[in-house]
Amino acid sequence: MTQPVLVELWRGDIVESFHRGAFAVVDSTGHVLHEGGDIDRPVYARSAVKGLQALPLVASGAAERFGLVDAELALACASHGGQPEHVATAVSMLAKAGLDADVLECGTHWPSNEAASRALAAAGQAPCPLHNNCSGKHSGFACLGALMAGDADRARGLLRGYVEPEHAVMREIGASLESATGVRLASAPRATDGCSIPTYAFALRALAHAFARLGTGAGLTPERARAAARLREAVAAAPLMVAGTGRLDTTLMAHFGQRVFCKVGAEGVYCAALPELGLGLALKMDDGNTARAAEVAVVALIESLLPLSDDDRALVAPLRDVTLTNWNGRVVGRLAAVGEAFAQSAR
Amino acid sequence: MTQPVLVELWRGDIVESFHRGAFAVVDSTGHVLHEGGDIDRPVYARSAVKGLQALPLVASGAAERFGLVDAELALACASHGGQPEHVATAVSMLAKAGLDADVLECGTHWPSNEAASRALAAAGQAPCPLHNNCSGKHSGFACLGALMAGDADRARGLLRGYVEPEHAVMREIGASLESATGVRLASAPRATDGCSIPTYAFALRALAHAFARLGTGAGLTPERARAAARLREAVAAAPLMVAGTGRLDTTLMAHFGQRVFCKVGAEGVYCAALPELGLGLALKMDDGNTARAAEVAVVALIESLLPLSDDDRALVAPLRDVTLTNWNGRVVGRLAAVGEAFAQSAR
Repeated sequence: MTQPVLVELWRGDIVESFHRGAFAVVDSTGHVLHEGGDIDRPVYARSAVKGLQALPLVASGAAERFGLVDAELALACASHGGQPEHVATAVSMLAKAGLDADVLECGTHWPSNEAASRALAAAGQAPCPLHNNCSGKHSGFACLGALMAGDADRARGLLRGYVEPEHAVMREIGASLESATGVRLASAPRATDGCSIPTYAFALRALAHAFARLGTGAGLTPERARAAARLREAVAAAPLMVAGTGRLDTTLMAHFGQRVFCKVGAEGVYCAALPELGLGLALKMDDGNTARAAEVAVVALIESLLPLSDDDRALVAPLRDVTLTNWNGRVVGRLAAVGEAFAQSAR
Repeated sequence: MTQPVLVELWRGDIVESFHRGAFAVVDSTGHVLHEGGDIDRPVYARSAVKGLQALPLVASGAAERFGLVDAELALACASHGGQPEHVATAVSMLAKAGLDADVLECGTHWPSNEAASRALAAAGQAPCPLHNNCSGKHSGFACLGALMAGDADRARGLLRGYVEPEHAVMREIGASLESATGVRLASAPRATDGCSIPTYAFALRALAHAFARLGTGAGLTPERARAAARLREAVAAAPLMVAGTGRLDTTLMAHFGQRVFCKVGAEGVYCAALPELGLGLALKMDDGNTARAAEVAVVALIESLLPLSDDDRALVAPLRDVTLTNWNGRVVGRLAAVGEAFAQSAR
């Protein structure tokens, strides 16, 4: 099936490039309210489900046991830019469980925030696993492991190999994914994510359903429902932690607070919960373009669903129809959601 | 028209993302030998035609007048990484014409080569127009302007506003594009490129035809045909200058020498000449993905056309079917050209 064009890049008077994809908007009973393209093809959820993967950290009691604060819980849900405040928060999470960065198995990359990357280089330093965009999620896994182990020494042993699908920590994460999506992981395509944990492929229909549950708690166990509420509260209170300076997740949640819980994933995936509507949404761009395609599409989708004030509209309009300038600041084109693709999706 | 899938990204056992596009392979008479997708839709040529835009620098006599060497002519055709050797070469080109970076109107960005960018930051420096990936092309324009002006002082005046379509320098560049593509620029969609010069949209059929001419000289004026031969020789002699460390254009031309003259452009455009076959090729990915989609596709196309030795095959195979690893070095998938898309294109 050929998917609809969701985002176009205009240069001068013609479309230079365009992005196809699919999206689903689902309520907490699993009913599909809006859709575009193929919503049953399996899509690797990647980092878009970090919120679901953080539920056990709270539901298990680990977050309370170690006294994790909003910023730390938000970082557990984050794909962060490796800015100094992100690194410091991961260090703090680990320290509260008596651990340090040595336990992290996420691998190392330079901060995705370019200014942070250059500042690190300018200071004569090299990146470590704390700069990995997933270090908060992994620090959350480490805190969960520390609770399971009982003390920090045993935790260091227990955590070895925690990224493997059959590890006790990862089985907890998998159970959370299963209950939220309603999909048995044994039947889902599985691959390895950038940070070495398993990533599973779900239908967009199931991912959107999971986010409807994450946004409302409906259909989750009471512990996970409370955990979902706590995470939504934490991310709204510390939106810089979930992404970083100038990043869309941070921008949207800094503005909308708990009205939107959204999360980007690699390869053009985006998921969001709109709690006041009881809805979850999920989208995937065919070409895997996250930064410009999935972001513009998710803004258009949120705009089409959420009741907006003038202030809200002033925030989202330039994110859904982005003016493009060149290195001299000249306007050269625009990146714009294809309105009809979203408007005509109503069932 | 829905374009064919040319490149797939596999993760685990399923396709995670895929890239559609179109391509044309044309001889110097304009006959289309192979094609896929819509080869008549106008496509902004972007940086893929820097070789054509550098023809006037040589054909005018400016390159000879200022004693430009291989590295400098290759840089005039380049989208370079802003590495120190690129910057030094642009400085040298300008100095030979009695000019400096003050005349450049390309704008400033951090080096696209990440190591060069971090090294610049580590040295406490900020980028200038010399680091712009187009600074070699613009330095070539400046040399052309210096020849037109007669001396450096007058050149500084003449060059003001040289990025505008109606400027005397840019009219020369436009004439070169017109004669190579066979398209009247007045009838082509025009927009502003990243470096502020005009970019025109051509059918892939016309771009491929232009590269067949660039690779053979057939159909060009004698001066431009000689200039084309000189540029092919220069880029083959100094392939690091045309792109940079680890970049595809550099890799291919360092290996194939004058057997391949290829050039990447922004938004998923790639053009190449295969002089021994008398062919030119041009491709454009719908989604504008250059780094992984257009690059893999152009390698597949070159591989399908050019007679290859075992050594040649050993170079191109891992560029056409790229193993993907994560931050821990684990193999997570592959990025691969869709063989049938290229194989079934023969007319």
